[in-house]
Amino acid sequence: MERKTMKALVERIKKDGIVFPGEILKVDNFLNHMVDPMLMEAMGLDFYDQFQDNGITKVLTAEVSGIAIATPTAHAFKVPMLFAKKNQSLTSNDAVYEARIYSYTKQDYFNLHVNKSFLSADDTVLIIDDFLANGEALKGLISLCEQADAQIGGIGIAIEKTFQPGGRDLREAGYSIYSQVKIKSLANETVTFE
Amino acid sequence: MERKTMKALVERIKKDGIVFPGEILKVDNFLNHMVDPMLMEAMGLDFYDQFQDNGITKVLTAEVSGIAIATPTAHAFKVPMLFAKKNQSLTSNDAVYEARIYSYTKQDYFNLHVNKSFLSADDTVLIIDDFLANGEALKGLISLCEQADAQIGGIGIAIEKTFQPGGRDLREAGYSIYSQVKIKSLANETVTFE
Repeated sequence: MERKTMKALVERIKKDGIVFPGEILKVDNFLNHMVDPMLMEAMGLDFYDQFQDNGITKVLTAEVSGIAIATPTAHAFKVPMLFAKKNQSLTSNDAVYEARIYSYTKQDYFNLHVNKSFLSADDTVLIIDDFLANGEALKGLISLCEQADAQIGGIGIAIEKTFQPGGRDLREAGYSIYSQVKIKSLANETVTFE
Repeated sequence: MERKTMKALVERIKKDGIVFPGEILKVDNFLNHMVDPMLMEAMGLDFYDQFQDNGITKVLTAEVSGIAIATPTAHAFKVPMLFAKKNQSLTSNDAVYEARIYSYTKQDYFNLHVNKSFLSADDTVLIIDDFLANGEALKGLISLCEQADAQIGGIGIAIEKTFQPGGRDLREAGYSIYSQVKIKSLANETVTFE
């Protein structure tokens, strides 16, 4: 079922991605700080191509870095884009679904939440995120959908690090994941694609 | 010089905006949490219509809520979108331009920064933000451009609260600001447009 990678994104990573010690791939010059909007559109259309038959009613991502990808993706599907927010000042009055997530990068927990009125059992959700490594953020987004009894119609990832276990674990759990780029190693500060 | 308001956004605020005590306008269901990507595209094209002759080379906004507007705006201009990040873990090694901003909403200061390599004297910047009230965030974005010796080719705002002084102050300082919607009062929990 799963397609090959998205060639334009592979080429862009080859050209502009920078590998730092600790198997960190920085894509700050076209994805995570400065953003190429033409590439974002192409990525959105590529996700549409992959998931167009799945009855998607909403695109869900997490702030901050998922938003620039999820907005043109939702545009391709002609459905709303919902971004889960990091908690700052929730009160007990706020009616939200909430998930606790461990960040390996920051070595700390954070919460993501969505307003309950924006996600329901009537939704079939396409989850979008920029990176998939250990899958912690993705499990949080999945949990938000499950709390709302929403269907998950697919998971679209820009860059998957297949040498970390998140993608394998979630595929084994039955989720349909399409990663536009799969990276099997960042050792020796070199990007090796699958 | 300045155009009228953007009718589609006025109508959407009439339909879906919610006014809370304290003159707060919530647009969480199409702009700040759940996002209507078709409206974002229309807003981007509207900004393009206004600023297309200004030689824009980059669109600058602030995370989080500016990103969904700035991405299709940058697409319309066919230029990169750069979002200023809120500081979390800067080290003295990071080469950034940085601005300190007071948030009236949170009653606290926060910092915004951009990597120095992404903004330079060669740039003519269109600054985009969702709200203009006291203008604190906007002044921070302007400061980032000034630190980089970048030209400011225009400022595009989705929703301006003209009963607060930010827009007036910045226009008096000579900046070219176009606000798609101008709200002159949120008293009595009612939106009154200019």
